[in-house]
Amino acid sequence: MCGTEKLSAKPTLNKCSLSSDNVTKEDNLINLDHGDPTVYESFWGKMGEKCTLVIKGNDLMSYMSDTRRLCWFLEPELEGAITRFHRVAGNAAVEDRYVVIGTGSTQLYQAVLYALTAPGSGAGPVPVVSAAPYYSQYQAETDLLCSGLYKWGGDAYAYDKDGPYIEVVTSPNNPDGNIREAVVNRSGTGEGKVLYDLAYYWPQYTPITRPADYDIMYFTFSKSTGHAGSRIGWALVKDEEVARKMTKFIELSSIGVSKDSQIRAAKIMGAICDSYQDLKSGNSENFFEFAHQLMAKRWKRLREVVAEVSEVFSLPKYPKEYCLFHGEFTESYPAYAWLKSNESIEDCEKFLREHCKIAGRGGRRFGVDPSYVRVTMLSREEAFEQFLQRLLSVKDIKKRALIV
Amino acid sequence: MCGTEKLSAKPTLNKCSLSSDNVTKEDNLINLDHGDPTVYESFWGKMGEKCTLVIKGNDLMSYMSDTRRLCWFLEPELEGAITRFHRVAGNAAVEDRYVVIGTGSTQLYQAVLYALTAPGSGAGPVPVVSAAPYYSQYQAETDLLCSGLYKWGGDAYAYDKDGPYIEVVTSPNNPDGNIREAVVNRSGTGEGKVLYDLAYYWPQYTPITRPADYDIMYFTFSKSTGHAGSRIGWALVKDEEVARKMTKFIELSSIGVSKDSQIRAAKIMGAICDSYQDLKSGNSENFFEFAHQLMAKRWKRLREVVAEVSEVFSLPKYPKEYCLFHGEFTESYPAYAWLKSNESIEDCEKFLREHCKIAGRGGRRFGVDPSYVRVTMLSREEAFEQFLQRLLSVKDIKKRALIV
Repeated sequence: MCGTEKLSAKPTLNKCSLSSDNVTKEDNLINLDHGDPTVYESFWGKMGEKCTLVIKGNDLMSYMSDTRRLCWFLEPELEGAITRFHRVAGNAAVEDRYVVIGTGSTQLYQAVLYALTAPGSGAGPVPVVSAAPYYSQYQAETDLLCSGLYKWGGDAYAYDKDGPYIEVVTSPNNPDGNIREAVVNRSGTGEGKVLYDLAYYWPQYTPITRPADYDIMYFTFSKSTGHAGSRIGWALVKDEEVARKMTKFIELSSIGVSKDSQIRAAKIMGAICDSYQDLKSGNSENFFEFAHQLMAKRWKRLREVVAEVSEVFSLPKYPKEYCLFHGEFTESYPAYAWLKSNESIEDCEKFLREHCKIAGRGGRRFGVDPSYVRVTMLSREEAFEQFLQRLLSVKDIKKRALIV
Repeated sequence: MCGTEKLSAKPTLNKCSLSSDNVTKEDNLINLDHGDPTVYESFWGKMGEKCTLVIKGNDLMSYMSDTRRLCWFLEPELEGAITRFHRVAGNAAVEDRYVVIGTGSTQLYQAVLYALTAPGSGAGPVPVVSAAPYYSQYQAETDLLCSGLYKWGGDAYAYDKDGPYIEVVTSPNNPDGNIREAVVNRSGTGEGKVLYDLAYYWPQYTPITRPADYDIMYFTFSKSTGHAGSRIGWALVKDEEVARKMTKFIELSSIGVSKDSQIRAAKIMGAICDSYQDLKSGNSENFFEFAHQLMAKRWKRLREVVAEVSEVFSLPKYPKEYCLFHGEFTESYPAYAWLKSNESIEDCEKFLREHCKIAGRGGRRFGVDPSYVRVTMLSREEAFEQFLQRLLSVKDIKKRALIV
């Protein structure tokens, strides 16, 4: 049978009891397992009226937004804001594309798989592959319903079968922050379809070297501005038929996407765009500058700490590239720290949990060996400070000779 | 292969170009195919401040609501409002149940199917049946991904196979407004699971004869208050394991449900409950009274019109029952008119479309013969008036001997 049995054994988001600062009350564990983007709350708290949404009792009551459009449940206001947002960030080509909205990019991922495989060929489910380390939820999301249309096919590097397949390219990659392209070398045969998860291709995380220009790419409100609770994602899709089938999937899965959140996303994106067009506003009011500086500061501090415990942990290095958005060479400051432990530690997740009281997500969940662990860089300030302190405590552990 | 090919041939919501009053500009067709509950807009437009939601830029940013709870993405404020709302309406037992939230009841339907069938038994997909006429989308939603866990099994009246099955009971029924119970007579064998779609079990549509008290039942914001655009549904679930698996499904499908809409639903439900606790407020401010009177008025007018064209159309009759909410015997005023044409008209949907310029949804979509058609009673006032006028025009058609 498909992957549901395995699934229930995996850790879930609601297994532990979190207070608002990510620290569990029972065992003092700091939970940095998930990528909850609360890091940006302080910025939005200062924005006042221009980011405050007011919805009256009779607003947005209909299922429909604009039934003349292919994606009939997409609010025109949000479509406009998305286009403008990408033009300001310079991170995606928006011309001649359909916008399809989803309940987070998670729903869009499934909508794309459906659109690329339905109606079924009859030749059995199409394998879905992604280069390891790949996003830990892809397998579970793909195999959730044991679909006859598609199934998880594992690491794209190891994929060498004939026939149709789908490759998911996450760039910058979750968990390791690297810029990626497709790796299955079957272009030209017409059998492979590629989709691009660009959740982290924003100027605070990585140099914007060009507007992404793929046939199917999607983004999310959660990681661009930090509004994860609104569950808004959007796809930019070249092919009309693919966009139509994605819309059909979302119609049958949830009859569209929350209009309240769509309008909120439009307002927040609009405020960011306004700030870049208002020359009088200082840098402090520009979201991407704020977020970029904040991520740079966190990464600088993390690298300092990891340097002090370099016998135990290491971090990836990222090349400097010319960022079109910032107009200078910049580094990557990924949303996650992809920590690798030295050879003496077999299971880095377990080590962090037991010795540092830090809950991260181990390498096996991402299709690689357990010497890796993913730790979010997007927590609130207090949780991030505790993360650094607890990581540093490894020095004392070493002194106490707990590590051989 | 599963039902995807058939699907794409079916009419979709975005096939025609609607203006805000449901009338297409191209062919003057009035679209009453879907159940968009815009009928209640006028009520909510008068509610002012007490139903106006204000969300600040830094509100509701996290994925999490309360990680100590089973359904960790459910806002405690909404859970409280749902409990209170059912107590005011008297339509469901809320004690000792888990509340699981979904992106509309559409997502919850799929979450229940997953929860009742995963991990798969290995014996092949479990049939899902419902008594005809059944909700037109169940088949497409069930077969969307050609799941190996479950598949559409058709009319429950005709179901006589051995082994596990799931029966969906919609009560009051969509399309015909009847109160229903399970019809597959296999209780006691432990092989059948029953889920109750109670979207229309509210005092404006049907007498509330008792609080519903089933193991798995779900409701939706769309049909209770008319806020379809918010995409909020909720299930009341007795069994912890079922609730946990439903939560897992929604985690993997969309990482939760829009928090903006959750808070909006809590506010609207709260305002309704407040109005019933505030003795000073007149009946006009009480939502269920307003909605009940409005539906009664529409049904009275529709029955008068149908009486005038009774040689062509007929409507179901509903028994009067004592309604615990209204404290008197009341009739049913369903959300849809389930029109039946006389023997001379083979296809009622086609007839309505061609002769009356009314787009309804034909009987075949609900698993019955095409002499039936479902027409929404929840449109805006102008569209409803046009519906009546156009239905009445059948008299002239008869005079012109277009009907033999």
